Amino acid sequence: MPEMRHDPVQKRWVVIASERGFRPMDYETARNSKSEVKVSSTPEFDPFAEGNESSTPPEVYAVRTVGIKPDSPGWKVRVVPNKYPALRIEGNLNREGVGLYDRMNGIGAHEVVIEAPDRDADLAFLPPNHAFEVVKAYRERLIDLMKDKRFRYILVYRNHGEFAGSTIVHPHSQITALPVTPLIIAKELESAKQHYYAKERCLFCDIIAQEVRENRRIVAQNERFLAFTPFASRFPYEICLLPKSHQHDYRKTTDDDLKQFVNMLQDILQRLYAGLQNPPYNMVLHTSPNTESFTPRPTHWSTIQNDWHWHLEIIPRLNNVAGFEWGSGIFINPMRPEQAAELLRGIVLE
Amino acid sequence: MPEMRHDPVQKRWVVIASERGFRPMDYETARNSKSEVKVSSTPEFDPFAEGNESSTPPEVYAVRTVGIKPDSPGWKVRVVPNKYPALRIEGNLNREGVGLYDRMNGIGAHEVVIEAPDRDADLAFLPPNHAFEVVKAYRERLIDLMKDKRFRYILVYRNHGEFAGSTIVHPHSQITALPVTPLIIAKELESAKQHYYAKERCLFCDIIAQEVRENRRIVAQNERFLAFTPFASRFPYEICLLPKSHQHDYRKTTDDDLKQFVNMLQDILQRLYAGLQNPPYNMVLHTSPNTESFTPRPTHWSTIQNDWHWHLEIIPRLNNVAGFEWGSGIFINPMRPEQAAELLRGIVLE
Repeated sequence: MPEMRHDPVQKRWVVIASERGFRPMDYETARNSKSEVKVSSTPEFDPFAEGNESSTPPEVYAVRTVGIKPDSPGWKVRVVPNKYPALRIEGNLNREGVGLYDRMNGIGAHEVVIEAPDRDADLAFLPPNHAFEVVKAYRERLIDLMKDKRFRYILVYRNHGEFAGSTIVHPHSQITALPVTPLIIAKELESAKQHYYAKERCLFCDIIAQEVRENRRIVAQNERFLAFTPFASRFPYEICLLPKSHQHDYRKTTDDDLKQFVNMLQDILQRLYAGLQNPPYNMVLHTSPNTESFTPRPTHWSTIQNDWHWHLEIIPRLNNVAGFEWGSGIFINPMRPEQAAELLRGIVLE
Repeated sequence: MPEMRHDPVQKRWVVIASERGFRPMDYETARNSKSEVKVSSTPEFDPFAEGNESSTPPEVYAVRTVGIKPDSPGWKVRVVPNKYPALRIEGNLNREGVGLYDRMNGIGAHEVVIEAPDRDADLAFLPPNHAFEVVKAYRERLIDLMKDKRFRYILVYRNHGEFAGSTIVHPHSQITALPVTPLIIAKELESAKQHYYAKERCLFCDIIAQEVRENRRIVAQNERFLAFTPFASRFPYEICLLPKSHQHDYRKTTDDDLKQFVNMLQDILQRLYAGLQNPPYNMVLHTSPNTESFTPRPTHWSTIQNDWHWHLEIIPRLNNVAGFEWGSGIFINPMRPEQAAELLRGIVLE
């Protein structure tokens, strides 16, 4: 059983998942044994390809031609449980203290969103109505997974390219349901709440207003979505993509919202592709935590629909992170966000 | 002038150092343009080698034979300013708000500790009296740099191997003086303070007591120092090395302390070298912040000599960090810390 452990100094949870086939002294295995999807993939065999549906666990969601039975060919998007999950869906949390430390069982869900039947597809260039089905699958899985009261937070993310941690070429996103609110999300929720308590305005709405007014870091926008390089970007070409109107929960997006969202997302991914020659990147959705997972709900989550604002982080992985960053949490960004925005804005998409 | 910027959502500072020769669309440059030392190093020319002293800025500290003049051959350890610093030593901070955001000038120091004249040397295997001079150089530079009241925190760190972010083969450590307390250190200081206020005991002393009592994660120890794999390790073989007796400030270590410290440090580095075939690693010292840098000193730093305990983090970089970790701050460790400790303990050093 995987385990979650809490560090009393840095106040963070880690997942100890020692059963995922990590051979301790095997350097090459170690390098790829983290949070990534693990399946038997070889150049000859693609477990995510159309026709190989039996090589994954049974699908939990799919977009397929009407009348075709599950786990068979004839789909556009398919969501399956990870065959080698970092967290297990069955069991109780059994929260307990161990002296100064804390632990619980590693209960959660770990799913893979297979974005297309073709391993050479790329989210950036899928036909818009197909790409829409991918981001809609995120919404549908969030709605379903948040029904499980053991899950405090559901993280949707995407690793593109080997340097960004992807070991499977076939295009896919991942969804991890966690029994805790992760440190970074908790920090963001706290900032948003403090801002709201002081000002009765959403922090992100205020940021949007300032970005639009300054107009120096905007990369692209459409009617409902805005993409900009954050003022304090950690990385060159880091992007924040979010709805212009206040919306706290990705589950509440309409199909029309998602069409505009995926339009902006593909715009950004295409700019990165063209400007940086298909760079590795990580993409992470920061949506509302599962506020219904607490009984009773803590007081500090009662204003979340007013103070939180969902957003997507896109981080091109152009440079490595070294001791300085690990040891301090301070990042050195060799590029001004204003310059990054200008360069990305200047790219002419075909 | 480099700039420090504050993010109002994640409440962290970044350094925007856009003058370090980063060519925006150049992927390979980007990959290596972060916090690492940047000098013109080629296989033929080693700027840190004995005889090439004129290729670095003038030394600020050196261990050399008596009577030999600075910046000439005849040294064991040499500390020089980084030729391409991420932060600049001269100027005023000019703290200011920019709407919701905050910024200040990137004032700081960035030094390189050249650990030996020979580029093929390795800190793990230097003669003990030579390795002692390296960790003593850390102390002497901390003492000197903390006299500058603009610096809130001085970070000592070491990147070993290309995958850990090192671009110069010649063995060296780095020292960065910052005008802010970094996020991770601030978090640790806060935990230690809360623990102390509640219990009037040092959090780290309590951890040491529990580790010694449980005796499952200890890797090595001598009379004054203990090395163990933290209960909630983020990475396989992550190590915490710290003094067994309460000591909050690395500047206060005696030569005898440092001899025992470097003995333990070399022990650990040799175990990693033998067990993991010379792995890349990051090493980061978490010592006391520069409490004298505030006038007047904030109340919450008045108990720091009781509540803080300096320690060294060693993180072998066996696996990459992907979207899950970036987006959540939750790490998935594929190896139980108890197993890592057992394997490292079992290595017989020559």
